[in-house]
Amino acid sequence: MTKKYTVLPAFLLSAFIASATPLASPDGKLAIEPGLDSAGHPTYSVSFNGLPVVSSGILGLKADEADFTSFAEIKEGAVVAEDNTWKPVWGEFETIRDNYTEMPVEYTTSDGRKITVRFRAYNDGVAFRYEIPEQQKVNYLTLRDEATTFPLAEDLSVFAIPGDYDTDERLYVESPVSQLGKRMRVRRHTESSGIPGVSVQTPLMAKSTKNKLYVNIHEAALVGYPAMALEVDTANIVFKAHLTPDRNGVRGYLQAPFHTPWRTLIISDDARDILASQLILNLNEPCAIENTDWIKPMKFVGVWWEMFVGRSRTWAYSNKYNAKPGITDYSSLESNGRHPANTENVKKYIDFAAENGIDGVLVEGWNEGWEDWAGWRKNRQFIFDKAYPDFDVEALRDYAAEKGVKLIMHHETAANAADYERQLDRAFQFMVDNNYPAVKTGYVGHIIPRSEYHSSQWMVDHYLHVAQRAADYKIMVDSHEAVRPTGLCRTWPNWIAQESARGGEFESMGGNPPEHTCLLPFTRLKGGPMDYTPGLFQADLSYYGEGKNGGGKTTLARQLALYVTMASPLQMACDLPENYNRFPDAFQFIRDVPLDWSDSRWLEAEPGDYITVARREKNGNDWYIGGVTDENARIAMLDFSFLEPGKKYTATIYEDGADADFRSNQQSYNIRKIKVNSKTKLKQKVAPGGGFAIQIKAADDLAGL
Amino acid sequence: MTKKYTVLPAFLLSAFIASATPLASPDGKLAIEPGLDSAGHPTYSVSFNGLPVVSSGILGLKADEADFTSFAEIKEGAVVAEDNTWKPVWGEFETIRDNYTEMPVEYTTSDGRKITVRFRAYNDGVAFRYEIPEQQKVNYLTLRDEATTFPLAEDLSVFAIPGDYDTDERLYVESPVSQLGKRMRVRRHTESSGIPGVSVQTPLMAKSTKNKLYVNIHEAALVGYPAMALEVDTANIVFKAHLTPDRNGVRGYLQAPFHTPWRTLIISDDARDILASQLILNLNEPCAIENTDWIKPMKFVGVWWEMFVGRSRTWAYSNKYNAKPGITDYSSLESNGRHPANTENVKKYIDFAAENGIDGVLVEGWNEGWEDWAGWRKNRQFIFDKAYPDFDVEALRDYAAEKGVKLIMHHETAANAADYERQLDRAFQFMVDNNYPAVKTGYVGHIIPRSEYHSSQWMVDHYLHVAQRAADYKIMVDSHEAVRPTGLCRTWPNWIAQESARGGEFESMGGNPPEHTCLLPFTRLKGGPMDYTPGLFQADLSYYGEGKNGGGKTTLARQLALYVTMASPLQMACDLPENYNRFPDAFQFIRDVPLDWSDSRWLEAEPGDYITVARREKNGNDWYIGGVTDENARIAMLDFSFLEPGKKYTATIYEDGADADFRSNQQSYNIRKIKVNSKTKLKQKVAPGGGFAIQIKAADDLAGL
Repeated sequence: MTKKYTVLPAFLLSAFIASATPLASPDGKLAIEPGLDSAGHPTYSVSFNGLPVVSSGILGLKADEADFTSFAEIKEGAVVAEDNTWKPVWGEFETIRDNYTEMPVEYTTSDGRKITVRFRAYNDGVAFRYEIPEQQKVNYLTLRDEATTFPLAEDLSVFAIPGDYDTDERLYVESPVSQLGKRMRVRRHTESSGIPGVSVQTPLMAKSTKNKLYVNIHEAALVGYPAMALEVDTANIVFKAHLTPDRNGVRGYLQAPFHTPWRTLIISDDARDILASQLILNLNEPCAIENTDWIKPMKFVGVWWEMFVGRSRTWAYSNKYNAKPGITDYSSLESNGRHPANTENVKKYIDFAAENGIDGVLVEGWNEGWEDWAGWRKNRQFIFDKAYPDFDVEALRDYAAEKGVKLIMHHETAANAADYERQLDRAFQFMVDNNYPAVKTGYVGHIIPRSEYHSSQWMVDHYLHVAQRAADYKIMVDSHEAVRPTGLCRTWPNWIAQESARGGEFESMGGNPPEHTCLLPFTRLKGGPMDYTPGLFQADLSYYGEGKNGGGKTTLARQLALYVTMASPLQMACDLPENYNRFPDAFQFIRDVPLDWSDSRWLEAEPGDYITVARREKNGNDWYIGGVTDENARIAMLDFSFLEPGKKYTATIYEDGADADFRSNQQSYNIRKIKVNSKTKLKQKVAPGGGFAIQIKAADDLAGL
Repeated sequence: MTKKYTVLPAFLLSAFIASATPLASPDGKLAIEPGLDSAGHPTYSVSFNGLPVVSSGILGLKADEADFTSFAEIKEGAVVAEDNTWKPVWGEFETIRDNYTEMPVEYTTSDGRKITVRFRAYNDGVAFRYEIPEQQKVNYLTLRDEATTFPLAEDLSVFAIPGDYDTDERLYVESPVSQLGKRMRVRRHTESSGIPGVSVQTPLMAKSTKNKLYVNIHEAALVGYPAMALEVDTANIVFKAHLTPDRNGVRGYLQAPFHTPWRTLIISDDARDILASQLILNLNEPCAIENTDWIKPMKFVGVWWEMFVGRSRTWAYSNKYNAKPGITDYSSLESNGRHPANTENVKKYIDFAAENGIDGVLVEGWNEGWEDWAGWRKNRQFIFDKAYPDFDVEALRDYAAEKGVKLIMHHETAANAADYERQLDRAFQFMVDNNYPAVKTGYVGHIIPRSEYHSSQWMVDHYLHVAQRAADYKIMVDSHEAVRPTGLCRTWPNWIAQESARGGEFESMGGNPPEHTCLLPFTRLKGGPMDYTPGLFQADLSYYGEGKNGGGKTTLARQLALYVTMASPLQMACDLPENYNRFPDAFQFIRDVPLDWSDSRWLEAEPGDYITVARREKNGNDWYIGGVTDENARIAMLDFSFLEPGKKYTATIYEDGADADFRSNQQSYNIRKIKVNSKTKLKQKVAPGGGFAIQIKAADDLAGL
C-alpha cells in the first residue's frame, strides 16, 4: 500500500504528521514513525512500549549540489516484513535471526530531487538510512552535513567518550545528557580531534534512571561515508550527527545511487538485550567471501607486552635515531640489544604457544622503521617486506611450521595509509610467501594523506580496502587505531577484530578502571569484536622494578572472565610466558576457552556495573561463563537453566580469592569444581574489580578424561 | 684548501664578502661566488665573462624546527674539479661530458645547526643545492620556505608562463621582468593554482636585449621536495623560489641527511648553447636501472586525435552518465557507437602501424570509467585492469603481436594518484600479462590525496614512484599532466617522456602560435623529452565539418621539423591514418626519422624566433635537420660542416611550398633532393609559421637503394 502526500503550503504539512504510519516491530513493542516538524523538516519518532524514546528527530542531508532537508512531497512506500536466519562464519551465535519490518519513505524537493529514508523496526531496535536513488537531477553530492538528530524524550544517563575524528581510546564518563558539558572536557578545535563543543562517539550507551529503558545509538555498515560522532545539545537533550570531515571541510564525496550507513537505536527495558542484540550485524550485507575455510579464530601470544612492562625494551632494532627504512643499511647498524622481535626470543614464544595449544605468535617491531617515530612528517615510516637483521623471516617461518604455530605479522603504518596502500600488494604477498595467515595493522599518529582523519570518508574506504585486498590473499586483519567498527565483519569476516577503543595496553598506562570492561560490551563491541588483549596475570608492574609503579586495575580471575565477556575470534594471552608459568592452573582456562560460540546467554548485565554471560562452544557441548564487576564486590546470581535438562555437568570455577581486590590483592584466586545441572542456581562472589570464569563440561564428556 | 670564517658581530660579516672565493667554471668564463648581504644573509653572485648575471641572490631554508637563513659561522670547503663522460640510454648525444668545478660552503647557525650549500660551475652554467648533513640538532624539518632568490643584474626579457601548482599547459608571454605585472595576468589565490601575485614557472628562459646573454633558470633532480615556481619582484628584478605547498601550507617534510634539488642557471652568449646544454642531466644521478635493454624508443600512432577532431567521438563507451567502474556491469550497457577505442578500430591502427614501420599504437578510452568526469569528487574514477566490452584485450594483444606492433596502454587517473597507487601493482601486472611495454599516465583534474597539488612534495614523490615501480615491470612511462621534468630520465630512463607543457593537442583548441615550438626547446625540454604529439597534417579542422573551425597554427612541413627540433625517444604521429595516406611522400619523413641520436648540432637558434638543429642517428651515419620559425618567414642558413669532410651525401628536403603559410596555406609543401657535403652552405626558405625537415644520407649508403 502506497500513501502519497503532496506537501504544498506549510500549514498542510501537519496533515502528514497526523496520518503518517508508524512502523512497528514484529513484536509490536517498538515503533518508528515518520513525521514533519513545525518548520517543515522531515522527522522520525521512536517509541518503546508506548513510551517515547526519540521525539521528532530531524532527518536530512545537505550537499553543495542539493539540499535534502525540506521537501514538497512525501510518499510512504509499502511496509514489508522479513524473517530469515543466517550463519556467521564466527561469532556469538551459530545462527542469527534477522526479523524486521521495513518501510521506505520518499521525499521530493520542490525542484524535483528525491531521497528515500528507509526505516526498519526490529524487536531489539530501530534503524534508518538515507538512500539517494538514481535520478536525472542528482549525480554527485559534495556532502556538507547530515541533519539527523536524536532528541531524547528523557534526560538519559549516558556512558560517553568525547567525539573525536582520530581516536576512540578514551575512558567513559557516566553522566546525564544535560550534564555532559560539565562532566566532559569541552573541546576547542584541535588538529587531532576537531569537534568543538560537547560531543560524543558512538556506540553510545544510555539508560533511563526513571524508566526501565536502555538505548544504544550507533551506525551499521559504514561504507563510502565518514564516521558519525554526535554533537550534544545539553539544554534540549538532543544529539546531532556530526560527520567526520576531511581537512578541506567536506564530509563526503557521494555519487547517486547511494545509501548512507544505517543509523541504529538498540532499545530494551533489559540491559541484557542490548548485549544480545545482533541488530548491527543484521543491518550489514551478507558475507562477500565465497570460500571462508581459511578464516579461523586464533588465540595468540606475542612479544608486545615486553615493550610495555620493560622500560628498556623497544620496538626498534638500533639506536640510530635517523635510520631510514629502505635506505639505511640496517645490517651495518649495531643492535640496541633491547629488541624483543629477534629470532631467538620469538622462537621462545613459538615454543610456548606450541606447548600450550596457542594458535599464533604476534611480533611487533620486526621490520625496518622503528628507530624514530615521526608520523605525519615522514612519507615513508615503514617497509612491510623488510625485516630487521635480527629477525630471520625464513628461519622463523620454518620453525613455526615445524611446531604447528602460525605467525601473525604486524603492519604499523604510523597512520601513513597512503604509503601502506602503495606497499599493500607486496606486503601481503610477502606474508603469503612466509606463511602468515593474519596481520595486525596499526594507525598511530596523524593520517597521511594529510587531507584525512582516522574517521574521514577516505580512511573509512581505506580500512575496508585493506580487508578486501587481504581477502584476496586469504589474510585475516586485526586493525588497530582504525575507525570504530560497524558490523562490517559480517560481510568481510576476515576482518576478524579491531582495537578502536581503550584496550588492555592501558593497564600499563594508568590502568583501565574495572567499570571500563563492564562498558565495552555495551559500546565498542556492538560494532564487532575487539582485540582487547586480556590475560594479564602480572598486573602490578612494580613487580618488574625499573621504576614502573602500579599498573592494571584488575584481579587475575577477572582477566580470565574477559575471554568470555569480551567475545572475539582473535584473543591474545597478553602476558609474558614466565607469568603464565607461575600460574599454570589459572592459565589452563586460557588454554581451554574457545573463540567461537554456538550460543550466548546473558545472565546478568548493567552497563558500567557488571556483566555475566554464558556461552556454548561452537561444535561442542561445553559451556563457559564469564562474569565481571566494577569497583564494587558483588554476588553474581547464576541460573544454569541454559543447560540441557536432566544432564549432569562439572563446572570448574576460576574465581577471585576471598581476599582478592583489584587495588591490593590482584593475584588472589581460587579454582574449584562443582557439579551443576539445569536446575542449579549459584551465588558467585566477585571481588572489587574482580571476575570469574567457569568451564562447564557434561559429565559424560568428562568420562574419557 | 679549507677556509673558515667565524662570523660574530654583523659588521665583521663583510670580511667574508671580501675574501670569499669565486668558483670558476673549467673554462673560466662563468663564476659563482658565495657572499653575505648587508643583513647577514648568505648570498651568491653569478658572473659570465665578468658580466654580472645574478647579484647577491639570497640563500637559505626556513623550517618550523630550524631557521637556516642567518648564520654565525661560514666555512668554505675545498674546490674539486671533475671531468667525466657518460652514455645515456637514449638522448641527443651518444656520450655526454660532465665537466665542472665544485665547492661546498658550510653555514652554521648561532645555535649550532649546519647546512651546506654545494656550488657547481660548468662551462654552460652554474648550480647549487642545499644539503642538510646528519647532525645531532637537526632531524625532521617541516619546511615553510626556501629563501633562494635570483636577483638579475639586468632587466632581462623573459619567456614566461604563470606560476601554478597544478599546470604548465600555458602559452608563453615575452616580457621584460619589470613589465611582467602588466603583461601577465596577476593572479589571486585560487584553488587550482594558488600563487598570488606575479609568478612564473621554470624552466624560465631569459635573454638580454643589451648584451649577448641568455639565461635559463630551472632545477635539476627534483626528488623528495616540492617543485619550485618563482615569485617575481618586478620593481627590483628579483625572482624568489616559491615552493609548492600542500593544502595544509607545508612546503615539504624533510629528514636529515637530505639535499634539495639543484637550482640551475644555464648561461651563454649564444642561444644555441642553451639548447645544447646537458647541465640538467649532468646534475642528476646516473642510471639506476641495471639492465636497460628493454627501454626502447618508440614511434606510435593512436586513436587519440579522433577524439579531438570529431566532436561526436568520445573516450566513453556508453552514455550511461553515472556508470561506476568496477560496480556497473558495462556489458549490459549499450555502446554509444562513438568510441574509437574499440577492437575493430584499433586493429586498423595496428595495420597502419605495421605497414609503416611504426612501433606502437596508443589507445585512450579502453577502460571502464570515462562515462563522466568528476575528478576530486570520485574516490574511484577508473579501473586499470578492466576493459570496456568492445575492447578485446586478448584479441588485440594477439593481433598486435602477429603484426609486430606494440600496444601502449593509457592510465588516466583523473588526478586520483591515491587510487592509482592502490591499483598500481595490479595495473602493471595486467600490462605485462598483455604485452604492453609502455604506459601513458594522465593526471587531469584536482589531485587526490586532497591535501596535494600536482607539484607538491607528495605528488613529486608519486610520479617518481610510478616510474620506479614501472621499472620493476620493465614498463616505460610517458606521464601527462605530471610535474615538469628535471632530468630524472637520466636516472630512470624508462621515464621516457612527459607532457608538462602545452602540447600538440592545443592545435584543436585555438592552436599553438608558431613561436610556441620555438620556445619549448628553450624551456620545457630542458627538463627532458616531451610527448608533444607532432605530425599534424590536417591542421585545419574545418576539413572535418562538424562545426570545427580553424585549428592548428602550423604548416605541414613544420610538423615534420618538430620530430627533430623537439627530440624525444617517444614520438607520436598524431594524425589520422587517412590523412597520412593522403600525403604519403611527406609521411615518408615520419617513417624514416630516428628517435635516438648520437650527436646534435644547433645551427641557428633564437628563443621564440627560430631553431635549426642537425642530428646524427644513433648507430648510423644519417643526419637529420629540423628547422622551425615563428610567425615570420625567414631564410635559414644551413652550414653542413658537421658532415664528414670529403664524403658525398644526398639530402632530401621536406620544405614549405612557395606559397605556404600557417594561417592560410598549411598543406603546401615541396620535397626535393640535393647533393651536399661538408662544405655546403644552404639558404633554406621557411614560410610564416613553417619549417623544414631534411634527411641526409651518405652517397655510399644510398648505393644499395
